[in-house]
Amino acid sequence: MLEPNDQSETRASEDEFRDEDGAIRHDFLERVRDAVTHHDSAVLRRLVGALHEADTGDLIEALEPDLRPQLIELMGKDFDFSALTEVDDAVREEILEELPPETVAEGVRELDSDDAVYILEDLDRQDQVEILQQLPATERIVLERSLLYPEESAGRRMQTEFIAVPPSWNVGQAIDYMRETADLPDRFYELYVVDPDQKLRGAVALDRLLRTKRPESVLDLMDEDRRRVKATDDQEEVARMFERYNLVAAPVVDENDRLVGVLTFDDIVDVIEQEAEEDIMALGGVGPEEELSDPVWVTAKGRFTWLFANLLTALMSAWVIKQFEHSIEKMVSLAVLMPIVASMGGNAGTQTMTVAVRSLATRDLSDANAARFARRELLVGLLNGIAFAVIMGVIAVVWFNVADLGLVIALAMVCVLTAAALGGFVIPLALTKLGVDPAVSSGPFVTTITDVVGFFSFLGIATLWFGLR
Amino acid sequence: MLEPNDQSETRASEDEFRDEDGAIRHDFLERVRDAVTHHDSAVLRRLVGALHEADTGDLIEALEPDLRPQLIELMGKDFDFSALTEVDDAVREEILEELPPETVAEGVRELDSDDAVYILEDLDRQDQVEILQQLPATERIVLERSLLYPEESAGRRMQTEFIAVPPSWNVGQAIDYMRETADLPDRFYELYVVDPDQKLRGAVALDRLLRTKRPESVLDLMDEDRRRVKATDDQEEVARMFERYNLVAAPVVDENDRLVGVLTFDDIVDVIEQEAEEDIMALGGVGPEEELSDPVWVTAKGRFTWLFANLLTALMSAWVIKQFEHSIEKMVSLAVLMPIVASMGGNAGTQTMTVAVRSLATRDLSDANAARFARRELLVGLLNGIAFAVIMGVIAVVWFNVADLGLVIALAMVCVLTAAALGGFVIPLALTKLGVDPAVSSGPFVTTITDVVGFFSFLGIATLWFGLR
Repeated sequence: MLEPNDQSETRASEDEFRDEDGAIRHDFLERVRDAVTHHDSAVLRRLVGALHEADTGDLIEALEPDLRPQLIELMGKDFDFSALTEVDDAVREEILEELPPETVAEGVRELDSDDAVYILEDLDRQDQVEILQQLPATERIVLERSLLYPEESAGRRMQTEFIAVPPSWNVGQAIDYMRETADLPDRFYELYVVDPDQKLRGAVALDRLLRTKRPESVLDLMDEDRRRVKATDDQEEVARMFERYNLVAAPVVDENDRLVGVLTFDDIVDVIEQEAEEDIMALGGVGPEEELSDPVWVTAKGRFTWLFANLLTALMSAWVIKQFEHSIEKMVSLAVLMPIVASMGGNAGTQTMTVAVRSLATRDLSDANAARFARRELLVGLLNGIAFAVIMGVIAVVWFNVADLGLVIALAMVCVLTAAALGGFVIPLALTKLGVDPAVSSGPFVTTITDVVGFFSFLGIATLWFGLR
Repeated sequence: MLEPNDQSETRASEDEFRDEDGAIRHDFLERVRDAVTHHDSAVLRRLVGALHEADTGDLIEALEPDLRPQLIELMGKDFDFSALTEVDDAVREEILEELPPETVAEGVRELDSDDAVYILEDLDRQDQVEILQQLPATERIVLERSLLYPEESAGRRMQTEFIAVPPSWNVGQAIDYMRETADLPDRFYELYVVDPDQKLRGAVALDRLLRTKRPESVLDLMDEDRRRVKATDDQEEVARMFERYNLVAAPVVDENDRLVGVLTFDDIVDVIEQEAEEDIMALGGVGPEEELSDPVWVTAKGRFTWLFANLLTALMSAWVIKQFEHSIEKMVSLAVLMPIVASMGGNAGTQTMTVAVRSLATRDLSDANAARFARRELLVGLLNGIAFAVIMGVIAVVWFNVADLGLVIALAMVCVLTAAALGGFVIPLALTKLGVDPAVSSGPFVTTITDVVGFFSFLGIATLWFGLR
C-alpha cells in the first residue's frame, strides 16, 4: 500500500530534482556527487532512493563515469536496476563491467523479465553466463529462454510475467484470484484465458472485467479476435500492429500457440522511437548505434565509413568533370556554374528519397501504389525542373552575359531534376527488394546519380552547344 | 457483451481482408468497389461493417476519391466515423467537403470527443459551425471548448470522457459504480479521484483496484504523485513525459487544477510518430505536412521553397568560385577536385547536424552538456579531417602527378571537415535559441558554410601555394 505521508519526508520531490526546463538541478547533482565521493550511503539513499527509475537513469548519465558504479554499490539493495534500462547502451555496458557479477545478479533478480533481458542482452556471452549462474534455476531458465530468441524479436522484448486464468472461471473468481495472489506482475492491463495445455484462448481487458457482474464467464468477455504476436516476430512489425489497432498489450505465443509472454505499449513506444531514430540517423549518414556517450574514437570511426562511401561518389563526379577539362579551360564560367546544377539535383533527390524511405517504413508505399508514386515524383521533378530552368537560365544570362549559357543550364536543370526524382524512388525501392535497409544505403547511390547526371548533362550540353571539343 | 458466434458469419475475417504482407487483398477491394458502384448497401455493410476502424481507414484510402463519400453514405449508421481519423488529412478533408453536414454531425456524435475534435479541427471555421450546429448543446459545448485550446496542445488531443469518483468512496463502491453505469468511456485504464469542486486529487490504476479488497478507500490506492498535464501544454512535451515514465494515461487539468480530460498512450504514440516523421521530413527538405495523397501541384510548390533556399546557397558557392576564375584557367585540375572538398564537407556537416537536431529533440542535448558535445564533434571532425586529408592527398598526387596538389587538398580537407563540425552544431543550437525549429532550417545554413569554406579554402590555398593570382 502507498503511504504517501510516510514517504514525503524522505522523498526527493519533483521540484527538487528538475528545474522548469526539465533539466536536472545543478545543486541536486552536486549533493549526489558529494555523497558518492564521501561514501555516504544514507544521504544517497535519501536523495536517490525514491526517484522514478527514469530520473535515476538521467542522474546516472549526468554523473562522471567513475562515480556511476560507486553510486550503485553504495545504494545496495535500494538501487532499482530498472534505471539501467534508461541509460545509453555504452553507459550501461561500462557500469556492468565495473560491478561484481553478484551485485548485478541480485539487481537483475528484482526486475521483470523484459528489463532483465534488456540489461543482459548486450553483454558478452561470458559475462551473461557469470551473472545467470548467480540466479535461482527458475529465473535463470526464463531469462536463458528469452535470450535465445533473435535480437529485436517479440520474444526478446516480452515480459514473461502475466495473469492467465482457465476458461471455466467467471468474473468473480478472476477478481478474487487477483485480490488473493501476492505475486502479480507490477503492472498489467489484461488477463489471458488459457486452456490447461497453455494454449491461448483470448484476452480480457481490465475495463471489461470491471464493468461486468461477478457471475459472468470470462469467455463471454474475451476478445478472441485479437491478434497474437509470435515470439519470433520482428519488433518493428509488432509495433506497426500495436499502432494500427491502438493496443495497450498483446499476448505473445510460441510456435504451438502457447502463451509465453506479454508485450505492453511502453515496450512498443520504445521500439517506435528507436526505429524512427534509426531512420533519422541513417538518412543523415550516422550509424543507428551512435550515442552521445560513445568515445570520440568510436564516433569518428563510425562516421568515417559513410564519408568514405561519399568520397567514392565524389571521385566519380570528379572523373566526369575531368572528361571535360578542355571545355572548362576554354570557358571557365562552366566551372563556376556546374556545382549549382549538381547541388540542386542532390537536394531534389534527397527530397524524393526521404519521402520514399519514410513511406516504405510506415508501409504507406508498397507495390500496390508504387507506380502512382513514381508518376507523382516524376511530375513533381519535371515541374520544379522547369521552374528552376527558367530561374537559373535568367540568372546565368544576366551574370555572364552569354545568352546561350542560360539555355544550356536550363536544359541541364530539367535533366538533373528529373533524374533526381527517378533515382530518389528507384534506389530505395530496389534496395528494399534486395533486403537492404533503404534508410542506410540510399543516400550515396542517389547522390552519385544526381552528381554524375548533373555534371555530365551540364558540361556535355555545353560542349556540344558551344562546339568546345 | 461480445457474442462472437453471432458475428462470425457476417464479419470479414482478417485473412479475407489482408494478405500475408499486410496489404489489402485485391479481390476484397474489388468487391467493395462493386458494391459502392451498384449502391448495394447490404453487401457493403457485410464487407466493411465489422472491420476495425484502422482497416476501414486503409480501405478508404485505397478507393478512388469519388467512391469514398459514396461508401460512407451507403453504409449510413453502420459507418464508424473514427475510421476517418486514420486517413491522411487531405483525404479526410475531401470526404468531409462532399458529405452533407447532417451526415457528418451524426457520425461525429457517436465518437469520443478526441476523435471528434481530430476530425473537426482541420475544417474551415464555417464548416465547423455548420456541423456543430447539428449537435445537441452538451456535446457542442464540449467540442467547442476543446477546439479553443491551441493546436497541438494536450487540450486538443484529450478525451473528455473519463471516470471520476469522490474521495469518500471505497474500492467496492467504485466497482459497483462501473458495473451499474451504462455510459462509460469505450476504453479506460484509470479512475480519477476528484473533490466536489472537480479538483483532481489523484489517479487509481485499474490493476491496483483489482488487487485490492472492497472496503479499502480509493484514497489509499491513489497515486497523487502522478504528474498532471495542463490542457495548454504542448503535445510534444506531454509525449516526452509519457515516454519517460511509461504512462498508460494521464489526467488533464485546467488552470484551476480541475480535471477536464484524459490523455491515453495511443494519442501519445501518434504524437511520437508524428514528431519523428516531421523531423525526418524536415531534415530531408520536405514539408512536414506533405502527404502521398496531396495533389502534384501542392507537393511541387512545397518542395520548391526548400530547393530555392538551396539555390541561394549554391549561388553563393558559385560566387566564391568566380573569384578564382583565373586560378582555374591556369590549372584546370582545381575544377576537377574542388567538388570533392565541398561534398565531403557537406556530408560531414549533415552528420553532425543530424545528431544535434535529434539530440535537441529528445532533450539529450541541452545547455548543460553543449560544451562537451561541441568538443566531441570538433575532435571527430578533426580526426576524420586528417584521415581524409591523407587519403585525398595521395589520390590527388597519383591522379594528377603534381606533388603539391596533394598537400593543398589535404590542408583544405582538414579545414572543411573542422568547419563542418562547427557549423553542424552551432547552427541547430543557435536556431533553437532563436525559437526556430532546427530540423526545418539547419540544412541550408550548414551547406552554405561547408560549401563556401570548402571552395574558398581549396581554391584559396591553391592560389597562394602555386602563386596563381
